Amino acid sequence: MRSPQSRNGGDTLSPPPPPPRNNNFPPSPHDIRFHSTLSVHKLKRFNSLILVFRIATFVFCLSSFVFMLTNSRSSPPHWFDFDSFRFVLAANGIVSVYSLVEMVVAVWEITTGATLFPEVYQVWFDFGHDQVFTYMLLAANVAGSTFVKTLKGTDTCTVTSAFCVQSAISVALGFAGFLFIALSTAMSGFRVVCFMLNGTRFHL
Amino acid sequence: MRSPQSRNGGDTLSPPPPPPRNNNFPPSPHDIRFHSTLSVHKLKRFNSLILVFRIATFVFCLSSFVFMLTNSRSSPPHWFDFDSFRFVLAANGIVSVYSLVEMVVAVWEITTGATLFPEVYQVWFDFGHDQVFTYMLLAANVAGSTFVKTLKGTDTCTVTSAFCVQSAISVALGFAGFLFIALSTAMSGFRVVCFMLNGTRFHL
Repeated sequence: MRSPQSRNGGDTLSPPPPPPRNNNFPPSPHDIRFHSTLSVHKLKRFNSLILVFRIATFVFCLSSFVFMLTNSRSSPPHWFDFDSFRFVLAANGIVSVYSLVEMVVAVWEITTGATLFPEVYQVWFDFGHDQVFTYMLLAANVAGSTFVKTLKGTDTCTVTSAFCVQSAISVALGFAGFLFIALSTAMSGFRVVCFMLNGTRFHL
Repeated sequence: MRSPQSRNGGDTLSPPPPPPRNNNFPPSPHDIRFHSTLSVHKLKRFNSLILVFRIATFVFCLSSFVFMLTNSRSSPPHWFDFDSFRFVLAANGIVSVYSLVEMVVAVWEITTGATLFPEVYQVWFDFGHDQVFTYMLLAANVAGSTFVKTLKGTDTCTVTSAFCVQSAISVALGFAGFLFIALSTAMSGFRVVCFMLNGTRFHL
């Protein structure tokens, strides 16, 4: 864990933890190759996990978006009559598109081994957007669920209960999306700190 | 930034970034002393900044708590009649207490130079609680603000407008608290990753 290693840009190499610090300096070419392979392998696993989270976020947020969008019949109420539901639709739509872009980025990185944009922009772009969108998605879904709860005591829900049920499902799917984008944020945050400390996103 | 340094437990030392990696190994005692002093100094500044954020969080959340708690007169409505306002009160109260504890922890670390609990527990305790409480506080305040907005169209706010205004102020103060606990989370997250990578919270 203490041996930062890099392929593009970083230039530090530290010895593995168990032996005392200066025993194997300078490292042999074999050491470098071994560390490098291990590092690439670990990064690939890390990126694959991020990709899984991105796919889950995309699926849940898109479902939430579709559920809310189709929550409108010939007669009122419609989803666009309520601010909170508009917020739910917008937030889930934005996060769906963002997740789709990030899925492409993750697949690109797994297949080519390099980031799509320069590394410094990529790690900050990912983390910055993840963080903001996580808070936005949570806020939207909480607003939606508070409003669904308020609606439940009113005529809107007694007359057209399907409207309220569909809204509740949309919000629940949005919360599932929030769970996965929060996990992605933790991982992209880890990459940012790796980059700040070691000058590379490789964390080995 | 690339030279992890430690006082208690960590044992790695890397050279400073500008010269090539192996030029100054083994480091002279002067190098070690210089790095160590710089590291302690940087950590102190880092902890002071966290302390400022903790104080701000405490002040805003406590104010929010007090505003909501006193939002009850002899006649209805009372804050405890509404779920969302109970949530706002509870979340801000919990975060106030937590911030107070974390202020003590931060002052302890700045004065003694060591963490209150063992380092591994301390960094994970701080980050874990920060993260959960950040989401909780955001959720509570969004729920509160959505409900205040819903109330505005009803008799409750036309008859007793002071109730709605005071609720809105409480929620706004809670959002300010959220801003500062989110900043604390970013910093404690940084410490966790430092610890995972270097075996110490020192980030130099």
